[in-house]
Amino acid sequence: MEAVGAGVTGVKAGDRVYVGGTLSGAYAELSLCDQTQVHPLPANVSFAQGAAMNVPYATAYHALVHRAAGEAGETVFVHGASGGVGIAAVQLARARGLTVIGTAGTERGRRLVLEQGAHHVLDHTATGYLEELMRLTGGRGVDVVLEMLANVNLQKDLGIVAMRGRIAVIGNRGTVEINARLAMNKNAAILGVALFHATPPQVVGIHAALVEGLSNGTLRPVIALELPLVQAPRAHEAVMEAGHHGKIVLIP
Amino acid sequence: MEAVGAGVTGVKAGDRVYVGGTLSGAYAELSLCDQTQVHPLPANVSFAQGAAMNVPYATAYHALVHRAAGEAGETVFVHGASGGVGIAAVQLARARGLTVIGTAGTERGRRLVLEQGAHHVLDHTATGYLEELMRLTGGRGVDVVLEMLANVNLQKDLGIVAMRGRIAVIGNRGTVEINARLAMNKNAAILGVALFHATPPQVVGIHAALVEGLSNGTLRPVIALELPLVQAPRAHEAVMEAGHHGKIVLIP
Repeated sequence: MEAVGAGVTGVKAGDRVYVGGTLSGAYAELSLCDQTQVHPLPANVSFAQGAAMNVPYATAYHALVHRAAGEAGETVFVHGASGGVGIAAVQLARARGLTVIGTAGTERGRRLVLEQGAHHVLDHTATGYLEELMRLTGGRGVDVVLEMLANVNLQKDLGIVAMRGRIAVIGNRGTVEINARLAMNKNAAILGVALFHATPPQVVGIHAALVEGLSNGTLRPVIALELPLVQAPRAHEAVMEAGHHGKIVLIP
Repeated sequence: MEAVGAGVTGVKAGDRVYVGGTLSGAYAELSLCDQTQVHPLPANVSFAQGAAMNVPYATAYHALVHRAAGEAGETVFVHGASGGVGIAAVQLARARGLTVIGTAGTERGRRLVLEQGAHHVLDHTATGYLEELMRLTGGRGVDVVLEMLANVNLQKDLGIVAMRGRIAVIGNRGTVEINARLAMNKNAAILGVALFHATPPQVVGIHAALVEGLSNGTLRPVIALELPLVQAPRAHEAVMEAGHHGKIVLIP
């Protein structure tokens, strides 16, 4: 969208922007935002891509950088890499110099994960995929796991993290039985992630990094579908259907 | 014990020392140590107390400081505070300026926990003790949990940590069912702790801090029982019996 008013963050009226939250809601032609919620949208990025930034990219950044402290040279396993946060995490981690291993449950999803920059992709519906992961890491395990479905995978993740590994829990839909001894034996960590609880300085850092990534082309939000605002109900159905890789964007 | 040889760490032959591990074993009149394992024992501390330092105090320090990053002004809940690591954690956390809440299952244990510096003590066998904990923190919860029995308490701990709280798992004896959503909702962390995996620089830091704490009197290892080395088999029985608060030390 375009900024109507100016802010202290360097955004002027008429500038192309994306927003990280609004005060008045985003299903609208105009939105009221706090100036800290408005970020410049580089010329090489579409408005639809801008609309796809905030939750997935900001969450992936908060998980990988602030919570898991993933560093260049480390290996990250994106457990569920073909969804919105997963694609963002693959692009972010690749650009920061991590070795990226992703998973997806479909052939199309796995192709997408590789296209977005993963060094390796695995099928999390295949038996033995975690043994394959251990082979890919020379038996060492991964330094960081970005976990999209902790209720299914958390105990398995404890088995495949390396010494001092960090498991960032981004998605979860129920309870899971774990043996915390596995975490003790590796000085490993399970880290809950909610973008909602990022501190104000962290939010500033997140968007400073995301704008730069958009500008230099390392972050490229994938749009699955654009629908007019009037078709918002249809968008809510589409988001629950399988097989959409990328974000669904409403166009006012 | 007394050092026989000198080391680069400033210990001279004849100095009083304690050891953080040995090369040749500690059930002995003499032990061979790497020089990095030998630390000065201040004059105000007995040899028996020196023998009680390494595993409990070093573990408590690694958990509280390196893993959970407990800071002055925060609240720490020592879930199981009357054992060796628990007592060490209470003394360490109190000296660093944290508000300390401990638990013990017996009246004698609770008295000990208060004597060692806890601001509050709770009975973890009493119904409603976690509601009492929440009242003590004004409903906010605790910043750090040092957990001695994760298989029983981990899910409960997720309920009583504050926003951005850290649960350091020091002890565990089986599996536990958790809902990772609780960790997500608070950006909370579950941190496995094994002293064995502290890095060499961390080990240096641990003993620098412990020697200073012994010297200034804030760390005072509690000795439950001293037995002659020849009675080592009896010591192994005693350590499994209930009701020993403090360490059992073999005297060569």
